[in-house]
Amino acid sequence: MLSRIDHVGIACRDLEAKIAFYESTFGLTVASIEVNEAQGVREAMLQVGTDTAGSSYVQLLEPLGPDTPVGRFLDRRGEGVHHVGYGVADITAALAAIGATGVRLIDERPRHGSMGASIAFLHPSDIGGVLTELVQPADR
Amino acid sequence: MLSRIDHVGIACRDLEAKIAFYESTFGLTVASIEVNEAQGVREAMLQVGTDTAGSSYVQLLEPLGPDTPVGRFLDRRGEGVHHVGYGVADITAALAAIGATGVRLIDERPRHGSMGASIAFLHPSDIGGVLTELVQPADR
Repeated sequence: MLSRIDHVGIACRDLEAKIAFYESTFGLTVASIEVNEAQGVREAMLQVGTDTAGSSYVQLLEPLGPDTPVGRFLDRRGEGVHHVGYGVADITAALAAIGATGVRLIDERPRHGSMGASIAFLHPSDIGGVLTELVQPADR
Repeated sequence: MLSRIDHVGIACRDLEAKIAFYESTFGLTVASIEVNEAQGVREAMLQVGTDTAGSSYVQLLEPLGPDTPVGRFLDRRGEGVHHVGYGVADITAALAAIGATGVRLIDERPRHGSMGASIAFLHPSDIGGVLTELVQPADR
C-alpha cells in the first residue's frame, strides 16, 4: 500500500535559517516553498536525491502562529520531527482500507498538501506515537 | 550528498506487536530483524515500496533495557520517531564534509548498522532537534 517514504516533516522556528542549514550542510535543494493556511504553516520541500519519479523530501514546517498544530508542537516538544508522510497510489482507497482496520483518521477525506498533493493524516495514538500522513502526489 | 531517506527509526515498547501492526495496517514486509548490542536495541527493518535498488524502511526499535539510548528516549518522550536515516554513497567522505561545517558527530567513525550497513549519527542539537543518521548500505 505504501509506495515510499514521501517526506519527513520537521517543525522549526525559522524556516529560512533551517533551509539554509539543510542546503549548506547536506546539499539539499528547495523544490517548493508555500503557505498552507488551512494547516497553519509555511513550509519548504527539500528534495533528497535526484530521482524525480519517486522523490523523497525533507519538509520544513514553520508555524504561522503559536495557536496552530505546529506552533503547539513547538511549545510542547521543541524543534524536531513532527510527522512522517508515505506515498500511496490511491489515497481514497488507502484511507478506506486503513480506517477499516480501526486506525482513526484525522482526515476522513483527502485535503490539499504540498506541491499539489492530496494528503490525509492518521491519528498518532493509534500508530505508536507517530503522526502519519498519506500522500498521493499530484502527477508523480 | 544525501541519496535518499533510508529509514525512519521509531522507538517502541513491543517489537513483535508493532511489526504485526505495520504489516496488517500498511502492508509492509519485514526485511530483517536483528539485535544490535552496541546500540542496545532489537530492531526490525520493514521495507517501504518494492524498489530494491534504493529501498526505504520503517525501522522499529525496541530497547534491550531501560538504561539504553532508546530506553531513555521511551521514558522521556514515549513511543514515536527516534531518528531519521539518510543514504550516502561514501560515509567517510560525508562525515568529513559535515564535520567541517561545524555539526558535531556522535560517531567520528562509521559503525555497524542494520543489514550490514555502515552508519554514523550526528548530534540532534546541531540539526534542529532531529537525531540524524548517515547510512552507507552494504551492497546497494
